[in-house]
Amino acid sequence: MLERLKEQVLEANLELYRRGLVIYTWGNASGIDREQGLVVIKPSGVAYEKLRTDSMVVLTLDGEIVEGELRPSSDTPTHLGLYRGFPEIGGVVHTHSPHATVWAQANREIPCFGTTHADYFYGAIPCVRVLTKDEVTTEYEKNTAQVIIEYFQNRNYQHLPGVLVAGHAPFTWGKDVAEAVHNSVVLEEIAKMAFASLQLNPELGPLPKYLLDKHFLRKHGPKAYYGQAKK
Amino acid sequence: MLERLKEQVLEANLELYRRGLVIYTWGNASGIDREQGLVVIKPSGVAYEKLRTDSMVVLTLDGEIVEGELRPSSDTPTHLGLYRGFPEIGGVVHTHSPHATVWAQANREIPCFGTTHADYFYGAIPCVRVLTKDEVTTEYEKNTAQVIIEYFQNRNYQHLPGVLVAGHAPFTWGKDVAEAVHNSVVLEEIAKMAFASLQLNPELGPLPKYLLDKHFLRKHGPKAYYGQAKK
Amino acid sequence: MLERLKEQVLEANLELYRRGLVIYTWGNASGIDREQGLVVIKPSGVAYEKLRTDSMVVLTLDGEIVEGELRPSSDTPTHLGLYRGFPEIGGVVHTHSPHATVWAQANREIPCFGTTHADYFYGAIPCVRVLTKDEVTTEYEKNTAQVIIEYFQNRNYQHLPGVLVAGHAPFTWGKDVAEAVHNSVVLEEIAKMAFASLQLNPELGPLPKYLLDKHFLRKHGPKAYYGQAKK
Amino acid sequence: MLERLKEQVLEANLELYRRGLVIYTWGNASGIDREQGLVVIKPSGVAYEKLRTDSMVVLTLDGEIVEGELRPSSDTPTHLGLYRGFPEIGGVVHTHSPHATVWAQANREIPCFGTTHADYFYGAIPCVRVLTKDEVTTEYEKNTAQVIIEYFQNRNYQHLPGVLVAGHAPFTWGKDVAEAVHNSVVLEEIAKMAFASLQLNPELGPLPKYLLDKHFLRKHGPKAYYGQAKK
Repeated sequence: MLERLKEQVLEANLELYRRGLVIYTWGNASGIDREQGLVVIKPSGVAYEKLRTDSMVVLTLDGEIVEGELRPSSDTPTHLGLYRGFPEIGGVVHTHSPHATVWAQANREIPCFGTTHADYFYGAIPCVRVLTKDEVTTEYEKNTAQVIIEYFQNRNYQHLPGVLVAGHAPFTWGKDVAEAVHNSVVLEEIAKMAFASLQLNPELGPLPKYLLDKHFLRKHGPKAYYGQAKK
Repeated sequence: MLERLKEQVLEANLELYRRGLVIYTWGNASGIDREQGLVVIKPSGVAYEKLRTDSMVVLTLDGEIVEGELRPSSDTPTHLGLYRGFPEIGGVVHTHSPHATVWAQANREIPCFGTTHADYFYGAIPCVRVLTKDEVTTEYEKNTAQVIIEYFQNRNYQHLPGVLVAGHAPFTWGKDVAEAVHNSVVLEEIAKMAFASLQLNPELGPLPKYLLDKHFLRKHGPKAYYGQAKK
Repeated sequence: MLERLKEQVLEANLELYRRGLVIYTWGNASGIDREQGLVVIKPSGVAYEKLRTDSMVVLTLDGEIVEGELRPSSDTPTHLGLYRGFPEIGGVVHTHSPHATVWAQANREIPCFGTTHADYFYGAIPCVRVLTKDEVTTEYEKNTAQVIIEYFQNRNYQHLPGVLVAGHAPFTWGKDVAEAVHNSVVLEEIAKMAFASLQLNPELGPLPKYLLDKHFLRKHGPKAYYGQAKK
Repeated sequence: MLERLKEQVLEANLELYRRGLVIYTWGNASGIDREQGLVVIKPSGVAYEKLRTDSMVVLTLDGEIVEGELRPSSDTPTHLGLYRGFPEIGGVVHTHSPHATVWAQANREIPCFGTTHADYFYGAIPCVRVLTKDEVTTEYEKNTAQVIIEYFQNRNYQHLPGVLVAGHAPFTWGKDVAEAVHNSVVLEEIAKMAFASLQLNPELGPLPKYLLDKHFLRKHGPKAYYGQAKK
């Protein structure tokens, strides 16, 4: 079942590895079939070299395993929570990519310092709070999603397709799993450049709003003119 | 038409990718045939793996498409503006290469801290100002070229074959597109070393003028003695 | 003799090289057969490209060579000392991997700043003291092990499978030599991220204890649920 | 003539490129045949991909070209000066490798912060002074050697097989050209780690003398016991 989606999810996991965002088993990518309400995710703790289409695990949005012989990623409840909370997304990625993780560990949002950032994220990339002791000891992974969703209650999660979890690492999403991977790669690059920009100028403020608008909207707004016309 | 130039421009775009200056579609290189007044540029938002000679777009200096089925790079008006303003250049490159972009984001020129810099750029690599709201909302890409050209009004653009645009990223040029790429690679390396030099010595001043003269002119002056004699 | 172990030790040494933790001959990995009380280690100063199974040296825990025509690694007495002091370990690795070495040179322990760290090390990664003049001039390599073992006298060396030696570099261990290599790779990644986290936030404190517990114990505690069930 | 030496010098130049110490034509390696008093060096400004044995240039110690159709490296007078001043060396390497160049640009010697350094350099790696205007305008490259040799007048150049030239970049040497390359690679690694060590601990002092002695002398002293016995 869902062979096409399994292939996309496998490919997305391998791409994380090839792009250097993940070593060993430090990341996971998933995709969802919204019509059937089924999620495909990487198994837990399996080396990237050994991942095959049929290693993938298929679950309902409530976490019931529908297909697959391996345990799903230990972060599965976070993925499922994000799919439930963000109805427009089709893919979720979690990594411990070094530069993004540094900002998460330092518990700081990433300000928008340039047009590279503005091309993908419509403002600062948030760092959501450290979970409380209660949230960690009971249903930790599910609560991680909860804290993210709370943050976006009055914000547009499609304009900020990624987040840092304080003390932990980044999560990103997209219309499908390939876009979620793309956003993880971009977030890592932005995090790297923002770090050095602050080293060079500790008083650096964000890009003017009109320049943020210009760059984000020429790619993502209704009058976008970047790339080729959709057929 | 212009098959040879298309090949050079394709090769230049691929070289940016191979040198690690560009991920995804974050850069663009173009070349000009001065006799015919025609520019060849990369299409917008097409993956580097899929670029072919016949994906290239041919335009007049006024931006009229003469050949090619794809939309040209969204930065095309900046390239065209630079060709109009700098009559001696044959190639233009734009990237978001990380270290150069960091200086652009921090809104700082790169001082000449060493002979590596002096071998290519005859003084500090300028960082031109952030565009105004008006410049951004109307003809943004064209105005980007305008701000660069204004900066060089009383300066020698052949002695400083590259520039940072504040809040954005670098542009470089050269006698042809291959040299423009070469200058982008060099700029990235210089930006990386200047950054760390300042970390190590925050009070660091520029290289003495006589050493700058020596290195720049032994490669680029009328009595240059670096490299092999031109035949 | 011990052909299987020799292969594992060879593979571990090559893996250090492939992972970029070691250049030239700057590292060494060993494994032990606890039943026979024999250690297999890399020879001293032999290029990685030239290492073969039969280049490996077999020694008793007292340092008597049982097999092998080459001199063992000059750090052999440190490896043997760790095997004698830590009876549950099966492999030892020493590298000068850059980021971990930076912390050792700066004589600082690596605080636990995030869950990546907490997944592998149950608290700060210690930096043991610089050896005294006496310890250096007599049996230096053996005393290096001694200083590490003293540090762990009242601590659990299985919960902290690695250490920095001040002014020198890291040592790691594991249930076998492959796990010791894995821990070296992880230590390097943690050291890199902790360094930049401190740059970004010089006042940064450690992760809350409950989050450290959660991450370490979900992978290593008696109720671990990360990865696939052991058969 | 000198075919064996030409091969070694070619291989050394290529190795600089493969190790990532050099981009484009930013480096040069040479070797000397002391019996014949002839030096083999890379030609100036020729791409590494195009270097062949017969591109190499053979010169006397006074700079007279004995064989070769191309101009020798523009840094040739520096190489020749070092061969004249340091009679025991057999190879010289010059690069603009980034981390070493950063220390040169910042005009700082590299203190010995750890055993990695102590294994190769018997104390701080010096940064010799910026050349004066007179030294730069007349026989610049020759004077570069002169300033280095002056520095070593009362020092052991075999115990410190490399140096930084302020505002410029590193030079290294060795008993042959392969060892000179090796020392360039090591210097770059040491420079990288020393930089970050200082960032982590700005007050960091050098390694105790007894530890420096131990590490340098176990590899290079008369009682060296690192590596395999010479036959």
